[in-house]
Amino acid sequence: MRVQTYDCTLRDGEQCEGITLSLEDKLRVVERLDAFGIDVVEGGFPASNPKDIAFFQRVQAMPLAHARIAAFGSTCKKGVAAHEDQGLRDLVACGAPVATIVGKTWDEQVTRALQTTLDENLRMIADSVAFLKEAGRTVVFDAEHFFDGYAANPAYALACVRAASDAGADSIDLCETNGGALPHDVFEATRAVVEALPGQQIGIHCHNDSGCAVANTLEAVRAGARQVQGTVNGIGERVGNTDLLTTIADLELKMGAACVGPDSLRELTAVSHFVAECCNVSVPAHHPYTGAAAFAHKGGLHASAIARFPEAYEHTPPESVGNSQRMLVSELAGKASLVAKARGLGFDLRDCPEKVQVILDDIKRREAAGYSYETADGSLALLLQRHLGSSKPHFTLESFRVIVDDREDDGALAKDAESEATVKVHVGQRRFVATGEGVGPVGALDTALRMAITESYPAVADMELVDYKVRLLDESVGTGAITRVVVTTTDGEASWGTVGVSENVIEASWNALVDSIEFGLLRQEVR
Amino acid sequence: MRVQTYDCTLRDGEQCEGITLSLEDKLRVVERLDAFGIDVVEGGFPASNPKDIAFFQRVQAMPLAHARIAAFGSTCKKGVAAHEDQGLRDLVACGAPVATIVGKTWDEQVTRALQTTLDENLRMIADSVAFLKEAGRTVVFDAEHFFDGYAANPAYALACVRAASDAGADSIDLCETNGGALPHDVFEATRAVVEALPGQQIGIHCHNDSGCAVANTLEAVRAGARQVQGTVNGIGERVGNTDLLTTIADLELKMGAACVGPDSLRELTAVSHFVAECCNVSVPAHHPYTGAAAFAHKGGLHASAIARFPEAYEHTPPESVGNSQRMLVSELAGKASLVAKARGLGFDLRDCPEKVQVILDDIKRREAAGYSYETADGSLALLLQRHLGSSKPHFTLESFRVIVDDREDDGALAKDAESEATVKVHVGQRRFVATGEGVGPVGALDTALRMAITESYPAVADMELVDYKVRLLDESVGTGAITRVVVTTTDGEASWGTVGVSENVIEASWNALVDSIEFGLLRQEVR
Repeated sequence: MRVQTYDCTLRDGEQCEGITLSLEDKLRVVERLDAFGIDVVEGGFPASNPKDIAFFQRVQAMPLAHARIAAFGSTCKKGVAAHEDQGLRDLVACGAPVATIVGKTWDEQVTRALQTTLDENLRMIADSVAFLKEAGRTVVFDAEHFFDGYAANPAYALACVRAASDAGADSIDLCETNGGALPHDVFEATRAVVEALPGQQIGIHCHNDSGCAVANTLEAVRAGARQVQGTVNGIGERVGNTDLLTTIADLELKMGAACVGPDSLRELTAVSHFVAECCNVSVPAHHPYTGAAAFAHKGGLHASAIARFPEAYEHTPPESVGNSQRMLVSELAGKASLVAKARGLGFDLRDCPEKVQVILDDIKRREAAGYSYETADGSLALLLQRHLGSSKPHFTLESFRVIVDDREDDGALAKDAESEATVKVHVGQRRFVATGEGVGPVGALDTALRMAITESYPAVADMELVDYKVRLLDESVGTGAITRVVVTTTDGEASWGTVGVSENVIEASWNALVDSIEFGLLRQEVR
Repeated sequence: MRVQTYDCTLRDGEQCEGITLSLEDKLRVVERLDAFGIDVVEGGFPASNPKDIAFFQRVQAMPLAHARIAAFGSTCKKGVAAHEDQGLRDLVACGAPVATIVGKTWDEQVTRALQTTLDENLRMIADSVAFLKEAGRTVVFDAEHFFDGYAANPAYALACVRAASDAGADSIDLCETNGGALPHDVFEATRAVVEALPGQQIGIHCHNDSGCAVANTLEAVRAGARQVQGTVNGIGERVGNTDLLTTIADLELKMGAACVGPDSLRELTAVSHFVAECCNVSVPAHHPYTGAAAFAHKGGLHASAIARFPEAYEHTPPESVGNSQRMLVSELAGKASLVAKARGLGFDLRDCPEKVQVILDDIKRREAAGYSYETADGSLALLLQRHLGSSKPHFTLESFRVIVDDREDDGALAKDAESEATVKVHVGQRRFVATGEGVGPVGALDTALRMAITESYPAVADMELVDYKVRLLDESVGTGAITRVVVTTTDGEASWGTVGVSENVIEASWNALVDSIEFGLLRQEVR
């Protein structure tokens, strides 16, 4: 059976506390999900903020191989005709080929939250769907609170989805909005809709509040749903949405369904980590299928048995989802992909095959030490340059010194310490010493480094540090934990990421800062 | 219906990479799970290492209100009579009232991994269960790989569990060992066992490799299982085990089952965070029921609706599991629990009710700023002392200075920076200045502080820093992230935790170090 995939990462995922995707991040996610084979990628609310408006403009110009972009909105307001409803007009105006609208199906929601009549709600659903169909859109009707509605008043809940179906909705996606349903409930209610609306495509959208989002989604498919909604890694508000990648793997590997196909499925782990990096979160080590520990073995009980009978302790071959036993996650795990990646950065490795293995080994060694190059193209380019012997550093460090001073005050919570950094660098034959101050030690270092080299390289004045991410790797080792710092820098025309790793957060930051300026100066010269 | 709860945190949970529980940690977990109402707490392998041996000795002396301790092992070895099998003898000798033994039920596992005959495996199961029953133990038979076995050879899989049942096993717990099963498979196979063995208690043990552990467990209960195994927060090797707390909440709140009862259920969030702290991991913000964001709302779509109809966006009242909308996790959330906790630390708050609210407000303010007192009794005691006006610091800080020096070398990966710390403190009228060195800045600070006060307080020589945990809170804010440091110190007789918080890791560490020594000196005086 074919099951369509519908990604909500850029809408529901971004509702997640602590996750904010820049416009560039959103476009990178679209590009990656398209290459992976996702059928529909929901972009956001076309009228909610300037970033989303710009997104729909920019995404129209992107050459997508497979995915179709959906814009998200609601049915028309009560008492307003669909063609006069501003929200629906925005949905059409944004140009996205798919329009997804949420509408109410729980009688109490209609009367208490929406404060209108049950009949007016049916009119709103039918009128809105028909308007969008007339405008030539593929229409997905998100049946909000369908499972609560079906439990409370099955006849009315079914009347709502029937209204959408009769008006021409291409897919009716049942939403388990409050997230508390259990698999058997979802199965029964979905089957009732499938039976009530023969020939209509049904979809499913779940949240994980009861810890059952993936299972609920699979049960809906067993009941006849053929479109699954979810987010990459399950990010979303409260407890998160259905993890779309886990669902795809379960469907393809265990239920015989066709979603992205077996070739794309081997990209599952890479997609999971790529989107996580864009969101500046880690894929938990114990994440299904894609986590670093998902196919790692430690249990004393099992060790000897695994050698004799690996199927017994691996529910699926890790390679099928691009993971591995004791894996090392890397987008660059193969020679061909490294050559392709290098070409994108301006390095032709086809003429030096002997170098490729050496570089791959170096990358793997560095990834094992905590580096991640997935969002650090600047550092990767410098690494390639060093291996190809064309490296000419613009400056070399003699030393740096960071001083953090603290002085006790009377308050129960101490005030912040103050920081000062001195760097000594060489540019050619000249030596420069500069001192910078900052609230924190890294800001002080950044200031000092720029002061030291600005006379030699005035272009550093145009470079700006726009993002700074710190991640403690393997926190359980305490003081010995490795810190990874990823810095994003822009020169107004492009932006690039660089990475530094050390047991000492200050040293890791320094390494990322140096790479960011080196790569920026390299860019200036190549132009 | 009554469903028994069986916790595997101390055995399967400790298989999780990066998690190591000390003996004291394990005993604290037992104490907490007992108070929460868990029926069976599995302690580990009685013969695998000195820590587990010591655990079974110590736990026998603990006054448990409800929980029974299980020791874990395997059926006897092939060709060995149960009464001569060392592993089974260790199970009896350790004194745990419950003996859980794992045995094979998948025909291929028997022939390929165990390399014996199907009949000998049946003999091993029956003989082992009978031996443990004769020794007066409650016997749980863990049917390893039951679901793969049932799929491959249902007759033999059923013969295995029947052998255990006929030999007198008190519970037969079906293990979904490789973690890849889906809910409908688990339901069907469990129902087959329930029907084949009327009157026999059946249990279920799942792993989360397909993202369905909780759902699989619930489906087994729907099929008739009455004992659920899992770990707190789902920790475990690979993708982890069934999350026992989520399962309990689903069972109690959504399936009408009785596990720990509604009063204990309000401790669910506190238990989740307590055990996580013992393991030095965070409860993910988006964890079902117990995460900080589990009942947080952000979605623009919902905001206005929530006010009118809260049930629509909260699948269960957050208070029912001890969580809250926009919650602040605290064991000390109520006045009564603060008074009780203070009494345990030697402070009687009953005579000063007016102080209790002031202290509670201070604790909440500090928790919002990133402090956590759940494993920092030392810091909590000092906080109480300050509020009660009996605080007499043993030393006061004038200032500290930490210097991190780095010098570029030739390698692609820079070597570690070196650190030096100077502290200036006052003890009474005297001023002491001392400088310490270390690989990292915190080690240097610790050394310097001890050097500065050792003449005044020779007892600091007996205190040793035994654990140091760092956690970045809200990493997404980059350089602005708050760092929480928890230090554990011992004086050879007792150990205590202290906590420090700051945007600056060095300052956070200093605050925790100062509390650790202050509390240690306070202990010396009280004795």
